[in-house]
This record gives sequence, C-alpha cells and structure tokens, in this order.
Amino acid sequence: MTATTAATAARTTDTPLVIDGLQCGPYDRDVFQQLRAGRVTCATATVAFWEDAIETMDALAAWNDLLDANADLVLPARTVGDIERAHETGRTAILLGAQNASPLQGRLGFVRHFHAMGLRVMQLTYNNNTEFGGSCYEETDPGLTRFGREVVREMNAVGMLVDLSHSGERTRRDAIEHSALPVVLTHANPRSLYDHPRNADDATLKALAARDGVVGLATYGSLCGRYARTLDDWCAMVARTVELVGVRHVAIGTDLSPKAGAAEFAWMRKGRWTRSEQRGADLGSPPASATGTGEWLADASGLARVADGLVATGFTRDEAHAVVGGNWLRLYASVLKTGDGDGS
Amino acid sequence: MTATTAATAARTTDTPLVIDGLQCGPYDRDVFQQLRAGRVTCATATVAFWEDAIETMDALAAWNDLLDANADLVLPARTVGDIERAHETGRTAILLGAQNASPLQGRLGFVRHFHAMGLRVMQLTYNNNTEFGGSCYEETDPGLTRFGREVVREMNAVGMLVDLSHSGERTRRDAIEHSALPVVLTHANPRSLYDHPRNADDATLKALAARDGVVGLATYGSLCGRYARTLDDWCAMVARTVELVGVRHVAIGTDLSPKAGAAEFAWMRKGRWTRSEQRGADLGSPPASATGTGEWLADASGLARVADGLVATGFTRDEAHAVVGGNWLRLYASVLKTGDGDGS
Repeated sequence: MTATTAATAARTTDTPLVIDGLQCGPYDRDVFQQLRAGRVTCATATVAFWEDAIETMDALAAWNDLLDANADLVLPARTVGDIERAHETGRTAILLGAQNASPLQGRLGFVRHFHAMGLRVMQLTYNNNTEFGGSCYEETDPGLTRFGREVVREMNAVGMLVDLSHSGERTRRDAIEHSALPVVLTHANPRSLYDHPRNADDATLKALAARDGVVGLATYGSLCGRYARTLDDWCAMVARTVELVGVRHVAIGTDLSPKAGAAEFAWMRKGRWTRSEQRGADLGSPPASATGTGEWLADASGLARVADGLVATGFTRDEAHAVVGGNWLRLYASVLKTGDGDGS
Repeated sequence: MTATTAATAARTTDTPLVIDGLQCGPYDRDVFQQLRAGRVTCATATVAFWEDAIETMDALAAWNDLLDANADLVLPARTVGDIERAHETGRTAILLGAQNASPLQGRLGFVRHFHAMGLRVMQLTYNNNTEFGGSCYEETDPGLTRFGREVVREMNAVGMLVDLSHSGERTRRDAIEHSALPVVLTHANPRSLYDHPRNADDATLKALAARDGVVGLATYGSLCGRYARTLDDWCAMVARTVELVGVRHVAIGTDLSPKAGAAEFAWMRKGRWTRSEQRGADLGSPPASATGTGEWLADASGLARVADGLVATGFTRDEAHAVVGGNWLRLYASVLKTGDGDGS
C-alpha cells in the first residue's frame, strides 16, 4: 500500500484507521481487548528500557508466544501490509519498539539482527546519555555521537524507525539532520504548550516536520500540563501543534501503560543505574493518576472517541483521520521495508 | 521451486547443481573463489561449535558483512529460491549452520530468533552430551531429551534442518522418529565402511532414508578409512552407501575447512570444556593431511570433478546429479520455508 492509497483508505472508511505510536507496560489478553474496544489498528509496544541483547530477545520471544496465543485479536506488525491486514480483519497489529538502544550491546551489526527478530522502532537514548547520544534528562546533551551516526544509518538501511522521544534537543536535531529517512517522536508534546524536559522545542518540531517526520502527542498526564484532563483539552493541544507544524506531522503517541504497576515503574525509572529513587516524568508536577495517564484515557478503549473529539474541536473529518492514523501509516510506509528478500 | 522441478533443473542442465552440505573454518574471498572454481551452487558454513547466543550473533553479523562485501560471488541461502538464484547467476549460496545448539542458551524461543537471523541448520549436539541429546563421542548417549524433543518440534515449525552428524546413535534414531520433517546427517559416513564413532550404523542410515532424510558423505580423511585417498575411492563409498539406502538419500557433506589452522582446530576440539588436548575426529588413525581432508580434495575447487567421477564409477548422469546436488535441494525444499509472511 502506497502512502497515498493508505491515506485514501483511512479517509473513505467509516471506521478510521487508528494508530497509537507508543505504549508500554505488561500486555495480556485484557489489554488486547482494550485495543479492540478502542478500534486501534496498530499500537507500538515497548520491549526494552535498559535491557541488554539477551534480555530483549527474551522479551521478543515472549511476544512471539503472546501474539500466537491471541491471533484472533492481534498480529505482529512487521510491514505496512500487516497493518492493512489488521484493519481488514478487525484486529490490532502490534509494532515492537525499544525505548533504548541498549539491546545492541555495542554492536552495529545487531541493528539488523533485532530488525530480523521483529523490532521496528528504537530510541537512541532513554533517560540517560548513551553511546549513541544525549538524553532529555541529562545536564549536557552532547548530540549524536559517532556510534549514533552509524546506528542511524544502519536503521535507515534495514527499515527501523529512529525514535527521539527521550533524547535531548541537540541529539534530536542532529538525528533529524543526519538521517536519510524521516525520524519520529513517538510520544512527546510541544514544550511551548507544557514546559517539561521530555517535551520538544518548537524549532525541533519544525525541523522534524520539514524532513517529513511525525510527532505522536502523549496523553500521559505529566507531559500535558493543562491539556491533561479531558479529551477536549488534549484535542486543543493537537490543534495548537497542528498550527505549529502542519496537520501531516501530528499523530497519537499516548504512552499508555494500563497494566504497569510499581515494579514496572521502578524498572523504567531506576533500571539498574542508580540506588536513589527516581520519578521519571513525574517531576514535581501534580502527580498523574495511578495509571499515569490523563484522566480521560485510562486505557486504549478510549481511543475510539478521538476522531470525533478532533472534529468537535474544528478539524475536518479528513484531518482527524490523518491525525488518528493516516500520518503514522504514511510515515511507516516511508521507513519500513515491504518484507521481500531476506526477511530483513 | 518444488522438489520435483528442482530435480528436473538439476538433471537437464549441463552444469550440475552442486551442493556441499557441510563446511567449516574461516571464510574469505579466496574460499569463495574456490567454491566458484568448484561450481558449487550452495555450501553450508558453520557459525558455531560451542558458542553462546551473543557469540553466534557476532558470527552471523560478520557473515552479513562478508556476504555483502562479496555479492559478486556469494549470496545468503535462506530459501530454496535463493539457491536457484545462485545457480542462475553463477554464484554460491551460503547456507549458515551451527554444529551445536549452544546458541539457544537454554531458550526454546531462540530457535525462531536464530532462524530469523539466518540460521538454517543446527545440530543438537557437537562432541559432548547437551541438554538436547547425546554425542557420538560420549560413553552413554541418553537419546533425545525432553528439551531436545521441544527443539526438534520448533525447528520443524520454523523450517530449520535438524542435523545429527555429531550425535550418538540413540539420539539420531530418536530424532529421526520424533521429527515431523526429514532430518539430516550433513557430514557422516557409514560405520560399516569405516568404523569411527562419528560414522553411522546401517540401521540409522536406513531409518533416516525411510523418513526421507539425506546423508552427506564426508571427504574428511579421518572419517573415510580406505576411502580417503582418491576421488574414485570416495565414489566407491558413495556407491556402497547407495546400495544400502538408495540413491535419493545420499549427497555430499565434505566437512572441508581449507582455511582452518591450529587455533580453529583447538577451538573445535577443546572449546572451553577441558584443559586436556583433544584430537577431535583424528582418533589414532593415520592422521589426515594438514587440511584435514582426503588427499584428493584440498578445497572446494575439486568438487567440479565429482559428477564425472560418479559416472565413471557406474552411476547414470541423472543419479550423479542427484548425489552432487539434487538430493540436498529436494531435502531443503521439504524442510525450509519459502520466505513469505513474517520473514521467518
């Protein structure tokens, strides 16, 4: 499916193709049923935050079994064709992503291996500086490193999304410039709308859009400020972001983790790199709800309402469909390979 | 390509499709040129003897680079279609295999991962008993274990050849019986022709053939006894093996390692499991030549002569073509997947 026909498919069907660019936490049949209730065609699930190669392979193997066991509800998203097939068969395609490049264990050649094993999205950093670049939470972001440049080139070659959601602004701008293909912010909001280290400068968002990238706006309460409370509030954030970068470059990236509990949050925030307590994104702002979401979206089932909410905010139906899914589908079609050849 | 059309292709062309079922040692452009000189359409290269998952992934990553850098001579064999394409374009397709299941690091789920990364052949044991079964060199071969049965089933499911070349007779017979798909001895000779622990009982060879498996006869001197010295000697071994199991079930599996030196042999024989000196297959018989081959075959370039040698021994041209390549191609077509779907 070309980008154009993808957009056409999204536009002409009564049920829009909905894509959530980033979710995390544990998955089970409950969560898959929430995705179906939300009529989500594709969602990206996180397989690593700090994990090394073997740990990530264990996570990917568990995902293989989970997808096989729930094939009536879900299927693996390795190509845009899989996402189309999900839409046609009333299922959710699961795209697998890593929120760190730690799985590479220092090997450029492992980009291709993890792509072969099903990984389709990867961040160059999570909450700390890495061999690849700088994190949004560090005092100094040194930008994309030598190894980071190699990895971006390799990710372009195999067809893996370069995700800069947790990177610093300098690393983001370097990657946007250096990558031969569009890059992504799967889950970040404009810093001009809510000042949080995880959010993105206007200049970064404009540079991203200028090179055909897409930003998935998060619903995670701590990243939204005054836009956290209701669907209408979040849609207002969408409208203002669209004014900034254009309607082709804005999408959904909730950061939903409906089944994440204390152990999962401790792993995401502390990993193994510190003994001190860490708050992750919850930095002194009023703490988000227990699920870490905005109050209006406890789980993916609420995503079925977003297209109508955007129309109520003032978007046309076409624009709403682009935001809820068409833009991600177009971006995926421009980066992911079709799946012919050696399976990479 | 179906098994039937594969056999037809092998038969009707002047240049037979030649397949060597097992080689090892270091590879470089020299070795690829030897394969081309030998008109070898496909050869299996060994990526692991004792290596764990990461070490094997490093080897596979190095193979990715080596194949990319020599694409005028070689290409990766992931499907039978790749082997056909190699034959059509005058190149050698390299099938990647492990002579141990150590890369799995105890995880059934890693069978699928290694298949995704390009592995197409795997032995359940090398020279010692494993979690999966018993080796030909151990005093007691306990047969296929519980984990071994799981792995055989998984290898059937993903399309990976179950290779029993270094396993004991009980493990061989168990795997032949348990596997839903034909299994292989990529490099072993009849023990009734030369009594060596690595060679195979008549009963095993007949059971293998009865379930459509194939045995690749080795040219490695220490496994051949009186059949080691000349091409005609080796062809005589082929003839006697064909009398035993039928011409559909005999092929070539040289065990060639033209670039293996002391370090490589030390790794194969000693690995990390002992501090004592190990002789591998060279057990008290007159030591083979420095390259470990029979005297007539120092490297793959000599394989171009084998079809004529078989005809001189009394085989028809069709039978010779089946032995030098058609039988492996048929076996591969019955086990390997076509490559559609998720790339597995």
